[in-house]
Amino acid sequence: MAEERRNYDEKLAHILRTAAAIFADKGYHEASIRDISRATGVSLSGLYYYFSSKEELLYLIQDHCFTTLAENLDQLLAQEPDGLRRFQLMVENHLRFFVNNMKEMKVLSHELDSLTGEFRQTVNAKKRQYTDVCSGVLQAVAPAGTKIDARVAIFALFGMMNWIYNWYHPDRDVPVAKLAEDMSQLFLRGFLTGAAGGAEWRSGAALEPSPSIWRT
Amino acid sequence: MAEERRNYDEKLAHILRTAAAIFADKGYHEASIRDISRATGVSLSGLYYYFSSKEELLYLIQDHCFTTLAENLDQLLAQEPDGLRRFQLMVENHLRFFVNNMKEMKVLSHELDSLTGEFRQTVNAKKRQYTDVCSGVLQAVAPAGTKIDARVAIFALFGMMNWIYNWYHPDRDVPVAKLAEDMSQLFLRGFLTGAAGGAEWRSGAALEPSPSIWRT
Repeated sequence: MAEERRNYDEKLAHILRTAAAIFADKGYHEASIRDISRATGVSLSGLYYYFSSKEELLYLIQDHCFTTLAENLDQLLAQEPDGLRRFQLMVENHLRFFVNNMKEMKVLSHELDSLTGEFRQTVNAKKRQYTDVCSGVLQAVAPAGTKIDARVAIFALFGMMNWIYNWYHPDRDVPVAKLAEDMSQLFLRGFLTGAAGGAEWRSGAALEPSPSIWRT
Repeated sequence: MAEERRNYDEKLAHILRTAAAIFADKGYHEASIRDISRATGVSLSGLYYYFSSKEELLYLIQDHCFTTLAENLDQLLAQEPDGLRRFQLMVENHLRFFVNNMKEMKVLSHELDSLTGEFRQTVNAKKRQYTDVCSGVLQAVAPAGTKIDARVAIFALFGMMNWIYNWYHPDRDVPVAKLAEDMSQLFLRGFLTGAAGGAEWRSGAALEPSPSIWRT
């Protein structure tokens, strides 16, 4: 039974990973279940064993992304009491996750509007929950009497990080540890300090995840 | 003749603005020229007087956006020698432009890949040129020996600003002048300073543009 379950999970992961790449490249509306069947080598009826519509497939991709991202963060934060260190772990977890899953990231950014009804509500709720956790980590290091609007702050940070799918090339740009360090320093200390606080940065060895969320 | 030219320009602006909204809402691939005909009240043959394909229409929207954005910036920078002030003008110009043209911004972010061949090259060249100007403004205020990677810095800034189409509601969130001030402070001084340097911020009265790029 455990063996069957594992086979099921692995096949589903393969389907979701392949589908995410196709949605990212062609766009969700342009992509067909037939494209996904061709790319995965799984028959149409085989695919419908795992989900009952293209929208459910998109939902499974988005839901799995937010769940994994949030679970990783929860695990990291559970072991770390220091506020600044918690901030750095959050930034590095977020960036590593997206660098390792750039296609999924594009699908998350571009296709949230494509979900409707309960699918959309569930994903939005997870997204909100993750945003709240991150905002809490951020506000915990806010200086007393800060004038920066809390929504501007958290979404400026997310924007900084999420935009990487538009420009970041893991093979040509700085490594992800340096990316996380620079963004963390930029956000906390600002460009004018020139990352003078670099000494306090520790990249998280604990943060080396498997290269893709779909691999188990 | 001048009158005819003005009529032509106004009608084209009306078509581009309407098409941008439809592309933003439905996605470029899903939207049809028929949708645009219906929404603008211009017949199909009337539309093809202005462009010869849906792709050329998308190109006209994107090209007009980057051209306007870059021209506005050039005008502002031409009158300002101070480095930090040039940075602030750049941030405020960029944010005001996008707050006033959120639909166009979504189309720019989501549909650049939808252009091919010469259309794509032209838009990419303008985008690169704008990025270079902004990066120059940014590097002009970089402290000596900064450790922040130049590509990380400029795209962190663009990410911070461009992401607003995902969360910013002009009616519920802070006004755009405060948005520009907070982002400028965050980027230059960092979150930990709590915008202590707020006193040096001057919002640009010169920056009040017409509410949409399509209005003349």
